[in-house]
This record gives sequence, C-alpha cells and structure tokens, in this order.
Amino acid sequence: MDGRAARGARSREHIMKEAVEIASVEGLDGLSFGALALRASISKSGIATLFGSKEQLQLATVAAAREVFRLRVVEPARQRNAGIDRIRGLLDAWLAYSRERVFGGGCFFVSASAEYDSKSGPIRDSIVAAVEEWHTYLAREIRRAVELGQLQQVDVDQFVFETTAFLETANARSLLTSSLAPYESAKRALGRLYGEW
Amino acid sequence: MDGRAARGARSREHIMKEAVEIASVEGLDGLSFGALALRASISKSGIATLFGSKEQLQLATVAAAREVFRLRVVEPARQRNAGIDRIRGLLDAWLAYSRERVFGGGCFFVSASAEYDSKSGPIRDSIVAAVEEWHTYLAREIRRAVELGQLQQVDVDQFVFETTAFLETANARSLLTSSLAPYESAKRALGRLYGEW
Repeated sequence: MDGRAARGARSREHIMKEAVEIASVEGLDGLSFGALALRASISKSGIATLFGSKEQLQLATVAAAREVFRLRVVEPARQRNAGIDRIRGLLDAWLAYSRERVFGGGCFFVSASAEYDSKSGPIRDSIVAAVEEWHTYLAREIRRAVELGQLQQVDVDQFVFETTAFLETANARSLLTSSLAPYESAKRALGRLYGEW
Repeated sequence: MDGRAARGARSREHIMKEAVEIASVEGLDGLSFGALALRASISKSGIATLFGSKEQLQLATVAAAREVFRLRVVEPARQRNAGIDRIRGLLDAWLAYSRERVFGGGCFFVSASAEYDSKSGPIRDSIVAAVEEWHTYLAREIRRAVELGQLQQVDVDQFVFETTAFLETANARSLLTSSLAPYESAKRALGRLYGEW
C-alpha cells in the first residue's frame, strides 16, 4: 500500500467506526449521509462518493459491526481448548462485549435485529446472516462439548436458544435499567447450562 | 357521552390503533404526523390538533400499547387461580400475543425498548415504567406460587429474568427467522422453571 492508499484505508476505517456508533444508538435507519458527515468531520459529498447510497452505507456498517463482533467475541475464545472451555470463553467474551459497551447501544446485532425483524430487503438479510453465523458457530461448539463428554446429550438448538436468550436479555435489561446486575443473572443462568465457572 | 363525543372517542381509538401499528413496525421514531395521517386517512392538521407534538403522540402510543398488553396478557390470566396456574396463563397469553402478532412487529415493548434503551427522556421513561410494571406483576405472582408451596423457594428476580428472557427471545427469533419454532423452544424452557403444562 502506498501512502495515499494507506491514508484512504485509515480514513475509511475512521468513518466506519463512527457509522457503527451512530447505527448502534440511533438505529441503522438513523444513519444518514448528513449525520455521518457531521460526526466523522468529513464532507457529505465525500461520504456519498465512498458509499453511493444510504443502503450501501448501511450494508457496509453491518459488515463492519460483524468484524468487531468477530474480533471481540469469537477470536479471543479461539485460543482456548475446544469444547466447554471455549464455550465459557465465548460467553465471557460476549458478556464483556455487551457490558463494556463496545457499541454505545449495546450489542449491535440485538439492536439491528429489533429494528429490521419486521422489514424485508438486503439489510435485514445481512443481519439475519450475521446472527445465523454466530448461532451456527455456537451450535458447533456445543456439539463438540457433547462429543468430548463434557456436556450430557443435549438438544443443541434448545441450548443455543436458551444461551442466546440469557446473553441478549442481559444486554437489553442492562441498557434499559442502567445496571450491571443483569450480567450476573445471565452468568448464573448460564452456569446451570454449562456448569458454574 | 353525546353523539359527537362518542364519534370523537371512536375516531381517537381508530387513530391510536394505526399509530401503534406504525410504531410497532417502523419504530416510535418513524411515527410522524405525516405517516399517521396517511395511514389513518385523516388530515395532518387534524392529527396535530389532537396531539400537539410528535412526542405527545409517541407517549399516547406507548400508553395505548400498554392497554393492549393489559387486555391481551394480564386480563385473561386474572380469571385463573392465583399462583402457578395464573403464571402459566400469563405465559401462554404472552406467547399467543407475540405469535398472533397482535402488533405487526411482535411485542411492542421489546421493539420500543431496543429503540429507546440508549436514549433518555420521557419516551424512554414511559417504556421503562411499562416494562417494570409487567416485571413487578410477574414477580408478585411468582412469590405467591412460592407461598402456596407450588414452587420451591426460588430467587424471584432470577426467575423473572429467565422467564422474560425466554419470552422475549421467542418473540425476537420468530420475527427474525419467520418461524414459529422459537415459541416451542420457549415453552420447553419455561416448563423447566414452572413444570411442564
């Protein structure tokens, strides 16, 4: 990469960071060229040139949030042993990712899902794909823990449902009540599924 | 009520029904005088006269949704015996209220919470109050079931957390995957808390 390309990449990275923050608090629909230009201190026409349309900007924002999720939740747990140890790592990382407000509005995908679950189109599709990727990954790790004899034979889909219910409700309740107590409730409930840790 | 007052009440009822529907799908922020006027086939100035400001309209919409929740979830279960029987009635009614899409966008308060949980002001406050009213009611019934010896000594707040996690996740997942299977997952998980029914 030459200097100019590197500056371009840094600038895009900076813009996407702001875009994700706006969408996290105001919703993806609140992510206008104008709002982003103001926040990223870049001209509106510069934003328009980069993204072309609001929908393209929204799709790029979902992709950027997915990358943040991967780096903050999935990657750290990769270093742990496959099975129950990695699952606990994923759950701890998820709770920290929500609790530390990596996104100002809590888990990006919980907010985005609620915003788009009654709509149709490419933005909804990209959110559904991200959520399903996470659930599939979690299911694979649960299956692995069963194969390793660390979990009793369980209904994997039911486990994914209950696990994500506790995570997402901790996120929602913490935001709504401005309290960290819901993370303790979630950890306790998860301990019943995966053994206390 | 004379004829004119009755017509006024019916007309307001009709407008609120449309307002709740728009907010349920588009979000409370998508509830503009223009959108509501179009949908309710009433002039924009008529809407403005009725509500005064967008915020007043949004607050009236939260109040209307709260009344729908009371009628669809809380009232039907009142006829059942206090304790575990009434709790199961509440859970069945909640799942039906979500599954039958009483609101086009699923549970109104799940959507509204996600939209306003990172904001501040009277709209957020009215949503928090509605959610807390429901949790307090549920907690009271759980406590009653314990007193009646129908539930073992439980941590009531933890039970409320887990119960609402299953309900709300069924709602969210069903909307996102266009499937009714999440309601079965929720019922199964709730059966572990309250005994199968």
